[in-house]
Amino acid sequence: MQQILHNIGAGTEGDLAGAIGDFLGRVVSVFDAQLESDLAPVAVLVKHVESYRGKMLRPTLVGLCGLAVRPDAVLTREHAVVGAVCEMVHMATLVHDDVLDEADTRRKGLTVNKLRGNEPAVILGDLLIAAAYHLCSQLQDQRAALAVGHASMVMCAGELLQLHHRDDFALDERTYFEIVDRKTAALIATSCELGAARSGASKEISDRLAQYGHKLGVAFQIQDDVLDLTGEERVVGKTLGKDLEKGKLTLPLIHHLASVTGKDRGRSLLLLEEASEGHGSSADAAATLRKAVVETGSLDYAKSVALRLVSEAKAEIAAIQPSAAKSGLLAAADAVVNRNL
Amino acid sequence: MQQILHNIGAGTEGDLAGAIGDFLGRVVSVFDAQLESDLAPVAVLVKHVESYRGKMLRPTLVGLCGLAVRPDAVLTREHAVVGAVCEMVHMATLVHDDVLDEADTRRKGLTVNKLRGNEPAVILGDLLIAAAYHLCSQLQDQRAALAVGHASMVMCAGELLQLHHRDDFALDERTYFEIVDRKTAALIATSCELGAARSGASKEISDRLAQYGHKLGVAFQIQDDVLDLTGEERVVGKTLGKDLEKGKLTLPLIHHLASVTGKDRGRSLLLLEEASEGHGSSADAAATLRKAVVETGSLDYAKSVALRLVSEAKAEIAAIQPSAAKSGLLAAADAVVNRNL
Repeated sequence: MQQILHNIGAGTEGDLAGAIGDFLGRVVSVFDAQLESDLAPVAVLVKHVESYRGKMLRPTLVGLCGLAVRPDAVLTREHAVVGAVCEMVHMATLVHDDVLDEADTRRKGLTVNKLRGNEPAVILGDLLIAAAYHLCSQLQDQRAALAVGHASMVMCAGELLQLHHRDDFALDERTYFEIVDRKTAALIATSCELGAARSGASKEISDRLAQYGHKLGVAFQIQDDVLDLTGEERVVGKTLGKDLEKGKLTLPLIHHLASVTGKDRGRSLLLLEEASEGHGSSADAAATLRKAVVETGSLDYAKSVALRLVSEAKAEIAAIQPSAAKSGLLAAADAVVNRNL
Repeated sequence: MQQILHNIGAGTEGDLAGAIGDFLGRVVSVFDAQLESDLAPVAVLVKHVESYRGKMLRPTLVGLCGLAVRPDAVLTREHAVVGAVCEMVHMATLVHDDVLDEADTRRKGLTVNKLRGNEPAVILGDLLIAAAYHLCSQLQDQRAALAVGHASMVMCAGELLQLHHRDDFALDERTYFEIVDRKTAALIATSCELGAARSGASKEISDRLAQYGHKLGVAFQIQDDVLDLTGEERVVGKTLGKDLEKGKLTLPLIHHLASVTGKDRGRSLLLLEEASEGHGSSADAAATLRKAVVETGSLDYAKSVALRLVSEAKAEIAAIQPSAAKSGLLAAADAVVNRNL
């Protein structure tokens, strides 16, 4: 989150970045305390997962939304618990996604599945989910647990829908967004909503912030798609090119396939086939395909959709009173598409 | 649970079996309603998991404990929700265990991982966990969510401990029980405790029933170990011999290795090595090892430990007033070690 924090600091009052930085420190303390274990084999794995901690987008949004809804709002322990819960659920999906994607690196280190095998990685993900719910049940208001449970179900449904459409080169934009709405946006929306609710926001304001989070989440996923296609592994810090390899159509590819006809389309479909797992020349095919995607303007298209979503996200919070935290939310939305990691 | 229901019916008043049968029907309704999905690829997988439903040990214990603690107790919707939650968490572990064990069959049908691959199986397990927590958060009293969250964390820790000791042929009984206490007994104990708590049982009685469930759970696991070694796949209905293949030492094997010395011990260790995954002659080695385990009386030893735990479980509920439900709990304890599936 350095980048987003930096953006917040640059465009707004300096002490907001400090407040959020302090809040994230408290989130980390709650997170680590919840996962402490006296069993050495468990403690080692948990320690490893802590190195995955990166942008902390979800807790940052919990904090910003918690502050933005009321001028006198303070970030309580309950906010920190909600932040840790959302981050823990997210972390669980990262651990399981890396198993599914057979990814080797994450945050510039080896993944749990690469280091210890798929089995501990599956169970570690389960432990993170269980720990998240256990933590969430400690809150006074059990609506948070309901919301987190619901968001998690929705995320799993999105992931299953995506798996169902693996190697489906006829995937259309509508289905793509059905997947992303569930897989990525739902938990980000919930983070915003719960951060606001912890500060006693009205339902109307919480709903608006949930919408803000939802749109920001979709934009975030599109930026991820773009980075998976064009990013440098050294900078992004995780295994890239996995979408192609795993037969996942992303927004730039969907646009590209819809833009080409006749022989060109046949060639792109062939390259897609070759780029997916188990084919000898997949790296070459992926490189050729990337060029073709740029040529049809499909990368620019995806970026423009992400930008539009960012401005829609910002528009959702127009009714919120100006404050440093609100400026932070606006800056966070911009940071989502400006990031290169 | 036919067998356990049958035992209940045989040893006690017939209308208890009817009441529990009716209760399990309500548990199934709550379970299925919670997992309904309008996404076809999700609905198909959920439907498949419903075919795993077998003994329903945990909901049965929720019902029996719910009735046993008060003569005027009735099984409410809250009991059914708790029963469905415990069954759903259990089902999630079955789905993930089958991935970890590369098991092909469960309840005489193909496993999700065999049928659809590991990836949907991992996410389906996650969906079941999320659905369980979401359901649990709908209860008035959030102590149930706390208890289920805690039990799930403990289960994962037990599973990680077991994975850590895979292929550890020096595993001792103490560590074996540390694993089983967590992996199997914790959720069964929680099922009993929550069933009792839903009927307003005192802390003392709930704790006693949790102890009953814990001991019954350990006995259940030992019986599973025995069946994995000696059962007939056709009767048990799931892939057997997986413990040996996956290098998991079970109670009969631990006892066997502690009973043999010198050359015999060397031979058994060699057979264990051969019986584990990736060795050509593993089926032959497993058969020879099974014979050796019988010869040292290690199967009988394991059975005797299970029997002792069953009587300890029964002793835990000595203070509970006699009733049909209490007789049911006593019969359920016996059924755990008398089962052949």
